[in-house]
Amino acid sequence: MNETIRTLLNHRSIRSFTDQKIPEEQIDLMVRAAQHASTSNFFQQYSMIRVTDPAKKQALAEIGNQHYIAEADGLFVLVIDLHRNAAIAKAKEQPSDVLGSTDFFFRAFSDTVIAAQNLVTAAESLGLGAVYLGSILNDPQAVVDLLKLPKLTFPAFGVATGYPNQAPQLKPRLPKETVYFENEYHSMEQPLEQLKDYDHVVNQYYDLRDANRRVDTFTNQIAKAVTGTQSENKQKMMETLKAQGLFQY
Amino acid sequence: MNETIRTLLNHRSIRSFTDQKIPEEQIDLMVRAAQHASTSNFFQQYSMIRVTDPAKKQALAEIGNQHYIAEADGLFVLVIDLHRNAAIAKAKEQPSDVLGSTDFFFRAFSDTVIAAQNLVTAAESLGLGAVYLGSILNDPQAVVDLLKLPKLTFPAFGVATGYPNQAPQLKPRLPKETVYFENEYHSMEQPLEQLKDYDHVVNQYYDLRDANRRVDTFTNQIAKAVTGTQSENKQKMMETLKAQGLFQY
Repeated sequence: MNETIRTLLNHRSIRSFTDQKIPEEQIDLMVRAAQHASTSNFFQQYSMIRVTDPAKKQALAEIGNQHYIAEADGLFVLVIDLHRNAAIAKAKEQPSDVLGSTDFFFRAFSDTVIAAQNLVTAAESLGLGAVYLGSILNDPQAVVDLLKLPKLTFPAFGVATGYPNQAPQLKPRLPKETVYFENEYHSMEQPLEQLKDYDHVVNQYYDLRDANRRVDTFTNQIAKAVTGTQSENKQKMMETLKAQGLFQY
Repeated sequence: MNETIRTLLNHRSIRSFTDQKIPEEQIDLMVRAAQHASTSNFFQQYSMIRVTDPAKKQALAEIGNQHYIAEADGLFVLVIDLHRNAAIAKAKEQPSDVLGSTDFFFRAFSDTVIAAQNLVTAAESLGLGAVYLGSILNDPQAVVDLLKLPKLTFPAFGVATGYPNQAPQLKPRLPKETVYFENEYHSMEQPLEQLKDYDHVVNQYYDLRDANRRVDTFTNQIAKAVTGTQSENKQKMMETLKAQGLFQY
């Protein structure tokens, strides 16, 4: 096993950071690594915004409802970006309605997430901890306003990185045979039976992580999460996307 | 610079493979690396299908209109998968309508792409070449049928890997200042001016890659690509997503 695969297999999300600053040359390496990832048709339809302004960091922490967002030295918002190519088309006096299509949204979303994972992998290879911040989508419009995101852009998520101030256990993943198939999809016939051992492993993991907290199984967590109600902002997410000029058809 | 970052910075898409088979233990490492990536709220909403059946490989090559798809020993389709958690909720007799929301689609899409990029990075660290296959979305419904993808799943893209039979040049990326910002988004005021040097670099790259082919600048490529018409399948992509039970609201 090589160093790269060891880095990937050792991933833990880090949600507590020390005060140590990340050297600028490491940030630069992370950004370069992100830029060198694949993009759909070489369209490079993503942008990265590093948030250093303390007031903006605090605002993102409040949107995400997670204090550690403001505490990360390397705080990034990854932006699905079809605006740049619209600007190029406009400068060439060409129409670019197609950038508002579902197809182009897919391409740009993929570009953004692929770049993000290179950013995270690079950070982890440098000894930094990182965590994805899906929680900034609690209020996408607030993020759009805060970072002045123009039409044809949308925040995918945040990434917080910094020197780790915790050393969590490795979280056990679903059994390979439930997520990896050959030649066709295999649905679980008896999910609770098939995930019984995994439920037990996850339960033990949570128990070890925090003995004072009530622990749960994987299948219970999922059942609870998908049964809950969504906030109004989540319910109108498509509305916000359309207002940004995306998903027009 | 460490080995991991060197791997990320050295990425080139490989579209020609030798006949050499990938050892099973390397496939296993790639899949494990993918599984150890972050997922939104630990919901693990993705699946991976390795396609080994020659008839199915050929079908995917025809959908993608790229012969090398059938020639890759390691051919994967990455699947946005909200079906597994719906099955768990059903087994627990809980409603799970929320899995059809835009919010949950975002989560699952991110999970899928993050896992995919770990698969690709692991492959490249092992000396394999890889390329993303967005082209399988030329006909999403055909992929759904071919791989028997159930409701609440959707193909994100394919990934082809194998031993490289070509050694392309590194493709020059957009200047950092056009994709990376601090604290707020910066639109290019004069895209053609600001990308003039980059256009020249890209032009040289294509010229070196294939002296017999008419070469183009980056901004010309973009303007042409966003002005073209889309196939009927691309135009009705949202329809296909909705038919899979996704984007219900």
